[in-house]
Amino acid sequence: MMNKNLVLINNYQKEMTLLNQSIALLEWDQLTYMPPNGVGSRAEQISLLSNLIHKKMISNELFTSLNALKKQKLSSKDSLMVKRLYKEVSKSRRLPEEYIKDLSKTTSLAYNAWDKARKEKKFKKFQTYLEKIVKLKKQECKYINEPGHEYNGLLDQYEEGMTVERLKPVFSKLKKDLIDLLNKIKESSNYKKQKKGMLKQHFSIEKQRNICEEVIKRMGLSKLVSRLDLTTHPFSEKIGIDDVRMATNFRESPLFSFESTMHEAGHALYEFNLPKEDAYNILGTAPSLGIHESQSRFWENMIGKQKSFWQFYFPIFKKEFNLKGDFNQWFKEVNYVKPGLVRIESDELTYCLHIILRFELELGLIEGSIKVSDLPKLWNKKMKELLGIVPRNDKEGVLQDVHWSGGSFGYFPTYAIGTIYSSQLYKQLLKEKFLVEEKIRKGNFREIILWLDKNIYKVGNKLTAEEIIKKACKEGLNPKVFTDYLTKKYSEIYEI
Amino acid sequence: MMNKNLVLINNYQKEMTLLNQSIALLEWDQLTYMPPNGVGSRAEQISLLSNLIHKKMISNELFTSLNALKKQKLSSKDSLMVKRLYKEVSKSRRLPEEYIKDLSKTTSLAYNAWDKARKEKKFKKFQTYLEKIVKLKKQECKYINEPGHEYNGLLDQYEEGMTVERLKPVFSKLKKDLIDLLNKIKESSNYKKQKKGMLKQHFSIEKQRNICEEVIKRMGLSKLVSRLDLTTHPFSEKIGIDDVRMATNFRESPLFSFESTMHEAGHALYEFNLPKEDAYNILGTAPSLGIHESQSRFWENMIGKQKSFWQFYFPIFKKEFNLKGDFNQWFKEVNYVKPGLVRIESDELTYCLHIILRFELELGLIEGSIKVSDLPKLWNKKMKELLGIVPRNDKEGVLQDVHWSGGSFGYFPTYAIGTIYSSQLYKQLLKEKFLVEEKIRKGNFREIILWLDKNIYKVGNKLTAEEIIKKACKEGLNPKVFTDYLTKKYSEIYEI
Repeated sequence: MMNKNLVLINNYQKEMTLLNQSIALLEWDQLTYMPPNGVGSRAEQISLLSNLIHKKMISNELFTSLNALKKQKLSSKDSLMVKRLYKEVSKSRRLPEEYIKDLSKTTSLAYNAWDKARKEKKFKKFQTYLEKIVKLKKQECKYINEPGHEYNGLLDQYEEGMTVERLKPVFSKLKKDLIDLLNKIKESSNYKKQKKGMLKQHFSIEKQRNICEEVIKRMGLSKLVSRLDLTTHPFSEKIGIDDVRMATNFRESPLFSFESTMHEAGHALYEFNLPKEDAYNILGTAPSLGIHESQSRFWENMIGKQKSFWQFYFPIFKKEFNLKGDFNQWFKEVNYVKPGLVRIESDELTYCLHIILRFELELGLIEGSIKVSDLPKLWNKKMKELLGIVPRNDKEGVLQDVHWSGGSFGYFPTYAIGTIYSSQLYKQLLKEKFLVEEKIRKGNFREIILWLDKNIYKVGNKLTAEEIIKKACKEGLNPKVFTDYLTKKYSEIYEI
Repeated sequence: MMNKNLVLINNYQKEMTLLNQSIALLEWDQLTYMPPNGVGSRAEQISLLSNLIHKKMISNELFTSLNALKKQKLSSKDSLMVKRLYKEVSKSRRLPEEYIKDLSKTTSLAYNAWDKARKEKKFKKFQTYLEKIVKLKKQECKYINEPGHEYNGLLDQYEEGMTVERLKPVFSKLKKDLIDLLNKIKESSNYKKQKKGMLKQHFSIEKQRNICEEVIKRMGLSKLVSRLDLTTHPFSEKIGIDDVRMATNFRESPLFSFESTMHEAGHALYEFNLPKEDAYNILGTAPSLGIHESQSRFWENMIGKQKSFWQFYFPIFKKEFNLKGDFNQWFKEVNYVKPGLVRIESDELTYCLHIILRFELELGLIEGSIKVSDLPKLWNKKMKELLGIVPRNDKEGVLQDVHWSGGSFGYFPTYAIGTIYSSQLYKQLLKEKFLVEEKIRKGNFREIILWLDKNIYKVGNKLTAEEIIKKACKEGLNPKVFTDYLTKKYSEIYEI
């Protein structure tokens, strides 16, 4: 006999998934092909569909069924699905309708203010909006009411189970080790004489596109199920079960499009390979943004910046772009370390320092130890402390990211968590498949994909992020694996 | 004081409009950029959103409000909106849920069967599906229960107010006059020696695209609010208030993409210019498919096939494509009449004969005087009678159109109605703006667009299709205007 409540919650999940996919297409279109003046209607369309999802999420019908199911004897899989969904639903129900509306209205105004302030390089013009957002986010922490640090409620939305208590020592250790390594590199003679040589020429966009298409295919995404388009800021979206989209941007250096394509293809490959039998329920989703980012970072950095990978791709680049220079020079240029002001343009080593800076500021704002009006000053102070450089203005500094204007507090840390996870995954892969770099050298990623499929993709949301990493790598989040990897790699490159 | 019921019906209409726009994007994407394997999820997404609209349309809450409003004193505009919406809602409510589901399931299977049957050129493989559809459509006529002929219920869905009683004599007259003119042309010596000369060369797709983009811009659609993409069968979609999309296909002859782009731009221009203050209510929509088609046909035929238009565009084509030959030869080739088997490839003169054939068959099927199993035989017989040619197989004949597999009975006639309307509109335009062809000769369409804006676009759905034509042209649907136009034009071209 069919369990009526199970049927009901499965219908709800399917409808919410299909609505989410429809929103994904509306967003994809907005960032790729939409005529500029379509933006007004687009906001209305997305807002309506988001609202329909929210209403389903907090509906009493769904909640009643979930409560009934919690008391019933179910298969272990169904029981897990109910547990996961119940947690999501309860969290959503803790936020009052009035709060949701207030936040949505505030962030919509704040985005415009941020955009304007950034263009004018004046944080002052954004300040009152951000103050309102911080106030609302503090309120949200109270509503969500996770145990421990008040910021945990925000963190938990993106990285379920993660806490300030767990993350603070991880980031402290990471910060110290990264700064130490960076300082050593900066003192080396190789650092002092480094300059871009091979990357200083014209790289045809047509050829850049071909090479991006090539690596996507090699990573296992055929054109039957995926596509690559042009956009301003690279992104990826899952539009349907067998439909994932990537978008990149072509700049002077071909590394920008190539690396960002590998990054987005890492995300897309994960989404594409999530368990299809759970395509319409919560167990078929990614458990956290950290795990998602571990997949993009894995391909972008652990694979895409390593020697054997370039032993395969350098000859292709050399031929396609008619490069002057040898492999060693190219490999160094791909891996140059150089502290910069902008997070999204930073190298593999300094990236996490940008994240830690944001995490520390967010924590201070939510705790109340930092005032919004002090942010520009503190931002610059921390930049000096972490990276040794200081922005000339607010656009290069505190106004560079869109996240805060959208109320995304607790989001930044997942970038660093994912980066650490990616190094742990690669270390374990090497341990289990010790010939994998031979295969990478031949442009063969099949073994890697099968390993990720088993350890990450097909787990879906049946384990939490850290449980997945623990099971795959025999230990949870460990920043030392990441800094050991960096130290070994960059000691060689910079001969320190 | 706000009228609660008015607020409610306006909210309903806005939500239905936004859901429809979201479906439009899902469809547009499916026909342009979607990776092939996305088709499964896409069907689920569209089905869910369609279902949400249907539920809103038949909801008791909406119906109760409408009934209350019908008894209230409202502004004349609100009162008209209530009247129009009430009619739509009542029609939808007449169809039982079970019927909707049955039809949707049947047509979904029928589409696949039609596609397969067409490939194999075997009507037999589609027959039982079509029998089921005809049975359901007869049932639908009973549910809808329009006065007069049973087919009126189907006709009314696409062409509100139109009836078999009104249309039959129109089509009889049209049929007779078209066949007479066609026979005269076929007997002329010019017809006997006609052959494509200038159109037999390679036309670069890049240049075809440029010229299509050019004519779209000249018709008043900038890239801020529109775009042109590549697809299999040309179409247009309104995606948002300031976002209309066209798609075409590039073939050997540049006339295919050019004419179809003008056709689709005619639709798009209409949608774009519908009254924006009614963007989210029924008064801001097109009153019928016939009126919509009058706009596409107006640009494709009345403008795009006339002499002064080509006096402007021929030099451009000649230069772009390096044409060998003179204007007179080109103008003749653009306007060649030649009976063919395929509706969508037919010329301006024979097109409506293809429509009349379908109308007569549909009528017979619904009346019960024609059996589905006799369709291929009757199709071929009528082709011989109307166009003098006979398909070699079912793919070239009865299986060529998708419409019946989707249950779209009553749809075809609107193509001919729109074509007649377009000739009436052009005749009236000439009467009021007698220098318009001077302007067309200079590639200036501004006066035309302003005239259409006043007489068609900005009326929206405030009048019915025939009321619009009566007001603009001082008479309703009149096939003689169309046949007079054709007779005059083709007598000159064929010197008969």
